[in-house]
Amino acid sequence: MITFTTDFGLTEHYVGVMKGVVYSINPAAQLVDITNAVQSFDILDGAIAIAQAYSYFPNDTVHVVVVDPGVGGQRRPILVTAGQYVFVAPDNGVLSLIYEREERISVRHITAEHYFRQPVSNTFHGRDVFAPVAAYLSKGVDAVKFGEEITDYVRFAAPKPKPAGPGTWKGVVLKTDKFGNLITNFTPADVPQIFDGSSQAFKIAAGKAEVTKLYTSYSTGQAGELFAILGSTGFLEISANKGSAARLAGADRGSEVTLTAA
Amino acid sequence: MITFTTDFGLTEHYVGVMKGVVYSINPAAQLVDITNAVQSFDILDGAIAIAQAYSYFPNDTVHVVVVDPGVGGQRRPILVTAGQYVFVAPDNGVLSLIYEREERISVRHITAEHYFRQPVSNTFHGRDVFAPVAAYLSKGVDAVKFGEEITDYVRFAAPKPKPAGPGTWKGVVLKTDKFGNLITNFTPADVPQIFDGSSQAFKIAAGKAEVTKLYTSYSTGQAGELFAILGSTGFLEISANKGSAARLAGADRGSEVTLTAA
Amino acid sequence: MITFTTDFGLTEHYVGVMKGVVYSINPAAQLVDITNAVQSFDILDGAIAIAQAYSYFPNDTVHVVVVDPGVGGQRRPILVTAGQYVFVAPDNGVLSLIYEREERISVRHITAEHYFRQPVSNTFHGRDVFAPVAAYLSKGVDAVKFGEEITDYVRFAAPKPKPAGPGTWKGVVLKTDKFGNLITNFTPADVPQIFDGSSQAFKIAAGKAEVTKLYTSYSTGQAGELFAILGSTGFLEISANKGSAARLAGADRGSEVTLTAA
Repeated sequence: MITFTTDFGLTEHYVGVMKGVVYSINPAAQLVDITNAVQSFDILDGAIAIAQAYSYFPNDTVHVVVVDPGVGGQRRPILVTAGQYVFVAPDNGVLSLIYEREERISVRHITAEHYFRQPVSNTFHGRDVFAPVAAYLSKGVDAVKFGEEITDYVRFAAPKPKPAGPGTWKGVVLKTDKFGNLITNFTPADVPQIFDGSSQAFKIAAGKAEVTKLYTSYSTGQAGELFAILGSTGFLEISANKGSAARLAGADRGSEVTLTAA
Repeated sequence: MITFTTDFGLTEHYVGVMKGVVYSINPAAQLVDITNAVQSFDILDGAIAIAQAYSYFPNDTVHVVVVDPGVGGQRRPILVTAGQYVFVAPDNGVLSLIYEREERISVRHITAEHYFRQPVSNTFHGRDVFAPVAAYLSKGVDAVKFGEEITDYVRFAAPKPKPAGPGTWKGVVLKTDKFGNLITNFTPADVPQIFDGSSQAFKIAAGKAEVTKLYTSYSTGQAGELFAILGSTGFLEISANKGSAARLAGADRGSEVTLTAA
Repeated sequence: MITFTTDFGLTEHYVGVMKGVVYSINPAAQLVDITNAVQSFDILDGAIAIAQAYSYFPNDTVHVVVVDPGVGGQRRPILVTAGQYVFVAPDNGVLSLIYEREERISVRHITAEHYFRQPVSNTFHGRDVFAPVAAYLSKGVDAVKFGEEITDYVRFAAPKPKPAGPGTWKGVVLKTDKFGNLITNFTPADVPQIFDGSSQAFKIAAGKAEVTKLYTSYSTGQAGELFAILGSTGFLEISANKGSAARLAGADRGSEVTLTAA
């Protein structure tokens, strides 16, 4: 099984071409899209998407992650085995959240060009490098065949909430989903007092929203009311029942989130 | 075979996660999207989408329908066998048009939690309840194993045209499709005199459009001309040849449609 | 294997219905989307999409191409064998770029109605004609069974750059991709002097952009800089590093491109 997480978009032939390349090498491959609508050139957005989804797939799934603004330049293509999964991606940090969550990590610089589609373009390594490597992996070619292990791979720390005065933290909106939920970077581990009920009162500010309620289901909220909720992503979300919190709050990806807990 | 009809969107990882959960349980499942772009929280829009598509699939297909604004609240998850098909969905009426069209209906309250993904979140039953139940169904687990039959399931009547004076009916635009066709809720059964040619003249008003022609193919119309046509959905559409009727008419989902037939 | 290239959109049930029809005839078919977001009614846009993608698929793949504004009118449904591939499409020129690229072409008028879904609507031949024909082809039914060969099929010439004075050519933007790359209709064969370095200087004007640099990777450009690059499509693109050239240039599909090479 091979999955795709890319910023190639839903309106282009690019992902179809990658699938054609895979099937030409391994007609028995099973292909599934995680999402191809990562924001263009946005490595953090891609890192979040794959981190949210990879662990729900069967063991040995090959995850192809192509958010690759550096294509054709010096960045290396890499093959990563992490826990029960295999990843192929550019070495630009798009797998950073995988490195953070998995303990057994092996990163290889893919150099075995005989597995590439020839000639290799400077503009579409999804087609010429990542799709064929994933196809050969799905046929059982061993990871060691693709190149040497490296340790200087690129990784960045996911943005974490930071203390900002007594009982105050500053975080950020990681993304807005299709429903308008504002997915922040706060987890229960960051502010346990909110989730265990020991905080007498809290306030979360984002955009023009001031949220003081934590609900356990979206359907608890009144029409037009903004509230906090622990989302399926494991992050604190600012949400509205049958409405767009992003629109109600005037906030979006990148908006600052200030949390105060007494 | 398992299909997906959801409002989870095309830009998120949510549907990919559901597919990962299915494949983890049944690697041999065949998965196909009907649409994941149902309007957010819009149960009628989801009901129309699945009703338009379900009957084209092979017998025994499991249709997963998740438009679920009440997730985490009191609404029940249900498993429905209807004609040759099986459906899993929240009990919020999203299957109402299936109940209307199929004669042999059995609705079960899904209570067999050992088939769920644990722990079950309050925010994503697509992942934790509906996907795993569909996967086990596709592996041959019998419907009776998932819970008791119920009769008080939620259903609503699809909006039907209503008489509004002599020779006059009022209906509504059910949806606008990608081409800009305005799909109304009029069927040939509602106004047979238009379709059998016995009406001397008719007029259909929607937005600023006044339509007096019925064509049998989109390509009959002149540039910029609005006309009526019996669409592939079985409903009367207001359409334009190579143009958007919605834009030309200034109408959209929910717009009133007045039909007068002499 | 069967692929889909249509203008049916990502938000509708239409493509899901076509897949249901295919699976009902051939449950073992492998289906893959090239793109269903061809611009509505836009035959050239569809022609470009399928031409960019078809050759990456395994031999004997059946490519279903439905951009069909003339559905229900006089245009014929056709079955084309071209090189190692089979195509089913309306005879409106949407396969013109395939005819241009492949040498061994056989075009048949599909008339064997017993392979159609009955009754055949006037509005959705994707469902009633093209999907079932593709399904039977994928089951091994021979092309000759579907109808007689024809030679008067519709084809148009793809727009080519034209000389417009000494050392000057005028071309056009064929499409803007999701990243904002402006894909022009210039190929290296049209202006070899730019690609082989023999031109001392060149200038490409499109919208308000004036481009004088040719780079070999997107990542070479400075922030906000527009440059030319040979894209993965084989065409000259006007691009920006991590930015939208379309927005920066104020140009889009159909914009004139003037190239001057000394």
